[in-house]
Amino acid sequence: MAYLDSTTISSDRDSSTTPAPDSPDTRHRILSALVLVALYLAIQFLLPRPASVAPAGWRLLGIFVAAIGALMLRPIPGGAAVLIAVILASIFGGLTIQQALGGYGDPTVWLVMAAFTISNALIKTGLARRIALLFIRTVGQTSLGVCYALSATDMVLASVIPSNGARSGGVVLPIVRSVAELYGSLPGPSAALVGSFLVTGVYQGICITAAMFFTGQASNPLAAKMAADMFHYPVTWALWFAAGIVPGLCSLAVVPWVVYRLDPPVIRKTPEAATFAARELERMGPAARSQKIAGGIFISVCALWITSAFHHLDITVTALLGSAALLLTGVLTWNDVVSDRAAWDIFIWYGGLLQLGKSLNDAGVTREFARSVGGMFGTANWVVVLAAALVIYFYAHYGFASITAHMLAMFPPFAALLVARKAPAGLVIFSFACFANFAAGLTNYGTTPSPMFYAHGYVSFQKWWRIGFVVSLVNLAIWSTVGFAWWKLIGIW
Amino acid sequence: MAYLDSTTISSDRDSSTTPAPDSPDTRHRILSALVLVALYLAIQFLLPRPASVAPAGWRLLGIFVAAIGALMLRPIPGGAAVLIAVILASIFGGLTIQQALGGYGDPTVWLVMAAFTISNALIKTGLARRIALLFIRTVGQTSLGVCYALSATDMVLASVIPSNGARSGGVVLPIVRSVAELYGSLPGPSAALVGSFLVTGVYQGICITAAMFFTGQASNPLAAKMAADMFHYPVTWALWFAAGIVPGLCSLAVVPWVVYRLDPPVIRKTPEAATFAARELERMGPAARSQKIAGGIFISVCALWITSAFHHLDITVTALLGSAALLLTGVLTWNDVVSDRAAWDIFIWYGGLLQLGKSLNDAGVTREFARSVGGMFGTANWVVVLAAALVIYFYAHYGFASITAHMLAMFPPFAALLVARKAPAGLVIFSFACFANFAAGLTNYGTTPSPMFYAHGYVSFQKWWRIGFVVSLVNLAIWSTVGFAWWKLIGIW
Repeated sequence: MAYLDSTTISSDRDSSTTPAPDSPDTRHRILSALVLVALYLAIQFLLPRPASVAPAGWRLLGIFVAAIGALMLRPIPGGAAVLIAVILASIFGGLTIQQALGGYGDPTVWLVMAAFTISNALIKTGLARRIALLFIRTVGQTSLGVCYALSATDMVLASVIPSNGARSGGVVLPIVRSVAELYGSLPGPSAALVGSFLVTGVYQGICITAAMFFTGQASNPLAAKMAADMFHYPVTWALWFAAGIVPGLCSLAVVPWVVYRLDPPVIRKTPEAATFAARELERMGPAARSQKIAGGIFISVCALWITSAFHHLDITVTALLGSAALLLTGVLTWNDVVSDRAAWDIFIWYGGLLQLGKSLNDAGVTREFARSVGGMFGTANWVVVLAAALVIYFYAHYGFASITAHMLAMFPPFAALLVARKAPAGLVIFSFACFANFAAGLTNYGTTPSPMFYAHGYVSFQKWWRIGFVVSLVNLAIWSTVGFAWWKLIGIW
Repeated sequence: MAYLDSTTISSDRDSSTTPAPDSPDTRHRILSALVLVALYLAIQFLLPRPASVAPAGWRLLGIFVAAIGALMLRPIPGGAAVLIAVILASIFGGLTIQQALGGYGDPTVWLVMAAFTISNALIKTGLARRIALLFIRTVGQTSLGVCYALSATDMVLASVIPSNGARSGGVVLPIVRSVAELYGSLPGPSAALVGSFLVTGVYQGICITAAMFFTGQASNPLAAKMAADMFHYPVTWALWFAAGIVPGLCSLAVVPWVVYRLDPPVIRKTPEAATFAARELERMGPAARSQKIAGGIFISVCALWITSAFHHLDITVTALLGSAALLLTGVLTWNDVVSDRAAWDIFIWYGGLLQLGKSLNDAGVTREFARSVGGMFGTANWVVVLAAALVIYFYAHYGFASITAHMLAMFPPFAALLVARKAPAGLVIFSFACFANFAAGLTNYGTTPSPMFYAHGYVSFQKWWRIGFVVSLVNLAIWSTVGFAWWKLIGIW
């Protein structure tokens, strides 16, 4: 887990001592703070407050925008910034402290916490690694096959692990690196042998898998919650699964091949990878008791999620039952739970932002924003507006270092705008929710594992962005044709 | 913090591997689980459910009692037990998962979290140690003086640090041990030199300081919250301070002297302790920048708490502002916050229990319990009932390993009973809230630091309990005379 720990959303700029007063870090902090204050003041004094929004609601907007700005500029760790925003919202933003802290008791946040616990168990027991090796042993005879195998692994794990930092960065990435090294492909001249292709191909794959499941990424349940709050549209695990599986599999089939053409590896046949996987599996021996238990719990949780329409067990309750089972069977200790720094980090910033976003909506700000953006489109048909809005929304991700920040800032106003224009709610919700995920493929900082993949140094900045842009066109083409058609077919719109 | 970590409420039975099937640990677990199930079934099928309580409310009672039982028997760590109770309450206890998780967004719980952060800073910067050494340098010329000095340190820290595990176990206890070793007093024959007296004397002192402040112990805000919820009686930090200071100082003056008579140390003059403290202070040099900042924030938070009647800033908001200031000034890093395992441990069990207790009250169970206990007292005057109830309540602590568990299980029904009997609410609330704290002095497991003090091995089990019992009589005598009179004087009743 050293991997994960060193790259969680907020620990990357952490240091145990205060930086020297003149260090670049201090300068960056002070400059960022000034930008954030300017942002707040600009909203308060330059942007006209609509009559329907109370002054406190407008101050809340300023606090929220400054918090999102802080997540992008990172003068302090994200969690600390959000916590401060929560405190300020309770003093100036018209919320009581009870309301401001409400997100920390929200089932959506606890779903993510429970899923973190389960993923913790999959990684700790070695089950996640076993799954990856099984895929490679099966289809790993070519470098393209290895890329498919690792994307498939990530897809399986995404059905229950919403931390792509843990899943893609913690489980899949180390295997990418191992396979590359197996062929003597290291950062530098030998990167072209196979490492460069594998890193970019698998990275693009993990951005697709994030879009495929309710649990594909931490902010997907957030989108579902916003859909429920704003439009009373219930997005379940099963519905997201149904919606994501067809366009997702299409993308997963096409994208590695596209990357293979854009960045062809010198080594194309990789029988050693399959042998390596077979040998590693042999070395691991038969699955240990703890792996079997973790696997059984993993499958049970997924099964209960898929069948929730029948037994009506809340999705969070199911996940928490899975965590409890892991604790009771001793697969995880209590110490594993309370010392999971990445989980507590996400808990604080996620719970805080969730509540701030919700309160902003309650204060009527989101509605007003959508109304004013809507004015720009005149009387255009919703199809035109949807197309334009989706493209703006998608490429706005160049400005975000987190899918959650992107989703939280832009999903509610854009979705509200489109639904007010009579676009079908299901189509709007799923397109905006899914597109924010694979938009992370554009850059080397778009979501938690992005810097982890990029930092291995196999791929230049220019190549990373060029491939990201081409793949974005492919993904947009697939999801807006195959995806929209499939969603029509299954009755989402 | 190794100290604290090894003795938090739940990590003490933690192990990273599953115990062997036949180990005493497994047997204990299975036996405990059977007891808890029996407890649940007994409540469901042997105890008649009052007509005013719904079946789901009665099942909630069973879950709650089993959870308290689990905190006492410890088949699994306390946090895990409470989390499972929360999940079960949402399935069987008539709560939605939103309601069951509500405690995690409660300001009371976040007050404790914020205070943990502040205490973390006091310990990390060495400020807490400096305060202790200053006290010893001043009044440490005799062994009785050292005992007073360390109790006074704990009292100062208790004004803002509700974790007595961190405060008494993490700061004060290591100094107790250092002073004892200074005189060659080790566990065993040399314990009688001075170590035995210091350990018991200071231990009894820290049980008194826990009763003196709103923040003296994690469950004190809980008692205040229950008082507000049940009787609309507002208990502020300032009011608790006013109520606790007089009887608390009396107890702190008398108790060390009583222990000194019961367990007289061989060494009575300890000039070396004062010299030791002076030397250590010299070695520490002038206060570092981080110590000054932490001290300034500590004092500011206390000042804001005391003056909250004027500015109406919520107590939790004040504490969170203090935490934010520590993060912004770099005294604490974000990593310090997310890796504070003891804080997250307390967060889970405390937030869960808080909500379960509240829900039980909402379900009408507490009221019914008080009504039936009240029946046993016939038509006796409230004075008689208060005296009897306080004694039962106090000595019931022999059965509790946690002040929180004690408070949560017994405060609401007893307080409700007395108030229904027309006893003055203020008197009832403060007596039951305070008495649960110094009741921890009875045993070697009554609150988190108890096993930490006891485990040093300076004092035999028999002596520990004997002194605990005598001191309990002294404390009861002081608080029910001086305390009650003082509370009358300041208008609490």
